[in-house]
This record gives sequence, structure tokens and C-alpha cells, in this order.
Amino acid sequence: MYVIIVYDINVYRINTIRKFLKRFVNWVQNSVFEGEITESQLIRIKAFINKHTDPEYDFIKIYSMDSDKYLDSYIIGKPKKEFSNII
Amino acid sequence: MYVIIVYDINVYRINTIRKFLKRFVNWVQNSVFEGEITESQLIRIKAFINKHTDPEYDFIKIYSMDSDKYLDSYIIGKPKKEFSNII
Repeated sequence: MYVIIVYDINVYRINTIRKFLKRFVNWVQNSVFEGEITESQLIRIKAFINKHTDPEYDFIKIYSMDSDKYLDSYIIGKPKKEFSNII
Repeated sequence: MYVIIVYDINVYRINTIRKFLKRFVNWVQNSVFEGEITESQLIRIKAFINKHTDPEYDFIKIYSMDSDKYLDSYIIGKPKKEFSNII
């Protein structure tokens, strides 16, 4: 399946989430990842995010679809260099 | 059609873009809008963004699909209050 993950996460928790997401999906920009994953990976991602974020202060939305064949995308500009504050 | 618009735009230009997008699509979080628009609205949105951003410093990605019927979404947390620095 294909996912787009957008987030607005407190600076204290953001690196934990980014490091984890990076293992499964591709960094798009500051607060967006996307990629092809399996359904069981999606379950892991949801569980990890639920565990490592605070719903009072953080917000994450995971869009998912069966395949990216339904999806077009159009880009303006150049993405900034990937966040450099994590390995 | 259905669009998800993510952006990373310089603070000097962001309000112009947000004000414009707000006329067509719904604010999701800090740097994300989504909603149902027509194809001609998508053309207008692309043209406006191209005109009012600087591709050297800004980055915008517009995901589009025929319909949101292909799209599932899963939310963790509460979105922050909508940006209050614009009317």
C-alpha cells in the first residue's frame, strides 16, 4: 500500500519519530514522508507513533491507499536538504 | 478531484499562499491543506503558487487523485488551532 504521512510534532519527540519513519518511508520535506509499505508495516508505524507522541500536543495524519497508481503529484521548488539533526 | 497540498515555504511568502489556498481547500495542519477541487481550480492553484513562491527557497508538493474514495486516513492527536496570524 502507499502512504503519505504528515505531522506536526513537538521538537522533543520529533527525532524519535523521524528516525523510525525513515526506516520505512521516504522523506519528502520538513514534515512529510511518503512511500510504499506493507499493511503490517502500517500497523507498526501507527503503534509506534501512538506510543511515542503526545496526543495533547502532537498531530499526525496518515493517508493511505492501496497503490500509488491513483496518485499524481506535482512539485514546485526544491526540497530543502534532509533534516541534518539526526543520523 | 481530491488534493493534498504540503508545503515548506519561506515565512515572507507563507501567508499569501495560505490565504489563497484557504479559498479552495481545508487547512489540516501547519503545512498541509486538503480538499475536493475542480480541475480548473487545480490549474489556478498551481499557477498562483508558481507565481508567488521562489523555487530556490520554497517547496510545494501537490498530490492529486480523481476522488478521495481511494483514500483512507488515520489521525493521531489534535490539530493545533488554525494559524492565527492571518485573517
